[in-house]
Amino acid sequence: MSDYQNDLILKTIKGEKTERYPVWLMRQAGRILPEYRAVRSSLSGFKELVETPERAAEVTVQPVDILGVDAAIIFSDILVIPEAMGLPYQMIEKKGPWFENTINSMEDLAKVSDQIDVADRLAYVPEAIKLTKKELNGRVPLIGFCGAPWTIFCYMTEGEGSKTFSKAKRLLFQDPAMSHKLLDMITNVTIKYLKLQIEAGADIVQIFDSWSGILSPTEYAEFGMKYVSRICDAINEVPVTVFAKGAYYAREDLASLKCQTIGIDWNMDIEESRRLIGEDKTLQGNLDPCVLFADFSTIESKTKNMLNSFGNQRHIANLGHGVYPDTDPEKVKCFIETVKGFAKN
Amino acid sequence: MSDYQNDLILKTIKGEKTERYPVWLMRQAGRILPEYRAVRSSLSGFKELVETPERAAEVTVQPVDILGVDAAIIFSDILVIPEAMGLPYQMIEKKGPWFENTINSMEDLAKVSDQIDVADRLAYVPEAIKLTKKELNGRVPLIGFCGAPWTIFCYMTEGEGSKTFSKAKRLLFQDPAMSHKLLDMITNVTIKYLKLQIEAGADIVQIFDSWSGILSPTEYAEFGMKYVSRICDAINEVPVTVFAKGAYYAREDLASLKCQTIGIDWNMDIEESRRLIGEDKTLQGNLDPCVLFADFSTIESKTKNMLNSFGNQRHIANLGHGVYPDTDPEKVKCFIETVKGFAKN
Repeated sequence: MSDYQNDLILKTIKGEKTERYPVWLMRQAGRILPEYRAVRSSLSGFKELVETPERAAEVTVQPVDILGVDAAIIFSDILVIPEAMGLPYQMIEKKGPWFENTINSMEDLAKVSDQIDVADRLAYVPEAIKLTKKELNGRVPLIGFCGAPWTIFCYMTEGEGSKTFSKAKRLLFQDPAMSHKLLDMITNVTIKYLKLQIEAGADIVQIFDSWSGILSPTEYAEFGMKYVSRICDAINEVPVTVFAKGAYYAREDLASLKCQTIGIDWNMDIEESRRLIGEDKTLQGNLDPCVLFADFSTIESKTKNMLNSFGNQRHIANLGHGVYPDTDPEKVKCFIETVKGFAKN
Repeated sequence: MSDYQNDLILKTIKGEKTERYPVWLMRQAGRILPEYRAVRSSLSGFKELVETPERAAEVTVQPVDILGVDAAIIFSDILVIPEAMGLPYQMIEKKGPWFENTINSMEDLAKVSDQIDVADRLAYVPEAIKLTKKELNGRVPLIGFCGAPWTIFCYMTEGEGSKTFSKAKRLLFQDPAMSHKLLDMITNVTIKYLKLQIEAGADIVQIFDSWSGILSPTEYAEFGMKYVSRICDAINEVPVTVFAKGAYYAREDLASLKCQTIGIDWNMDIEESRRLIGEDKTLQGNLDPCVLFADFSTIESKTKNMLNSFGNQRHIANLGHGVYPDTDPEKVKCFIETVKGFAKN
């Protein structure tokens, strides 16, 4: 007997037989929903929403109520980690994150610390998780998350979003010792942070490696996967999902991680990914988020194509990346309903 | 007998035996060289340089003299095509290209035309090529280039650079008929443009598909490769190189293009790429441009690793993407000298 009215995603992660594929969307909490924008506009901005547990819980639950997804994901941001370590950020409207200070040398490491009381500095996240669990009241499981150390390193060194993150990447070559030290510190804090989310009630945790795709296979093995692997090894309490966007070249290696689910982006062929990753993992993804700009019948047919390529194996339906902010919620519903109406053989 | 003192790149493209690998760098003409910046600062900006044949020729020849590369590539910009079609752009310092008008609907297509006198509108490009050939005086071959239709489409619809080009991508799903029409128009003009470059003296032409990596395999086949293929079919005068950055998923299909060389980026494993593409093409690439931020001995060892993985097959040494503007020219020389000093077995 399950603790949840809908435990489709947990069953799928364990490889148990289910009548249909579970479905949720990356970035489902936020942006696309007018109900989210109403909450957001009542506050000073994105960060106040992240840091106010009652409101973060409210927008976390919205897509469960409004869209009918099979899992909630806590509303938060991967950049709470650098901030807790001593590097505050601002979220600038229509521009993205911006850090006044960045880490570019061994000396700069003094600006940050991994010897911090994570439970104290990030108390608002477990608090939001507890409120969300109460509000969900056993309807669907709740996903917690973090950025992968390499992706967090990108922002802490580059200081803002970038197409190439060449400042971050150059550090790997210019100062590998300092790079490893910072990655190690991020990893230490991230493990504590995930355990905190799990204690508060997260049923699954997902590691987002949004910028793995800009590294070469050699550098990803050395500076990326190594630290993701340490996190996976440390988390035994709940299932772990690793989404290494763009790291198509690492799919065989990802199979060796101590995690249950691997996210795949829309560039990755599903059948090839299954072949490379093997039968022992659940896959998650991978409709191109731009498909949701098509007409309803195209969305339906492209979603069905994706579902057919799952081949009745362990799969969680999702997009291959976060849903775009200007997507019509009715189109999102069309995607979700198509998954729900698709019977596995 | 060859027309060139150094015809290593042409021999390699034909699959002939050579004593060493030829080497050049994408974006070698410009940015990294103080000699380039001196020319550039004497003019009003990037576009004046592109449109002034004498100065464009001058900066094209600089890396041959200063860096000792085995080929020159004409200094120009892929966005001269939209401008010739009726959509002018500005190059904004530290920001990139910006279009006042963009194409977002069937009605917008009236803003552009493929029924133009390309030789007249883009006369400055063949003129720069002629001057460059004279200046090179048979030292090394000259590469001409264009953007692939999908990449040009990205800028004409999005209006500026973007991490996701989601406005461009959404059009493929929202209005496939209009998308195909615009891609067809770009292709028509591009073929004329490449023939013009070849008539003026380009010895090789390269098609840059900088944004192929953001499409899924299905969309790249339909909206990307289809038009690249049409260009390859139309160009029989000189060898063609196709560089579809990020389109790792299309490598088997790229092998079927009527082109001689396939560019590979730093994410793509060289041996796997050779296996997927087969023995009938020359490969070009693929050192991570960030490696040039490392110390000299790391640059040397990583370059040698790359050269060893070429396995004595048809290969042109290059970076896996354009050289970054703030790269030390001495580091670039280290890369070039390492390739030149590496004897094939």
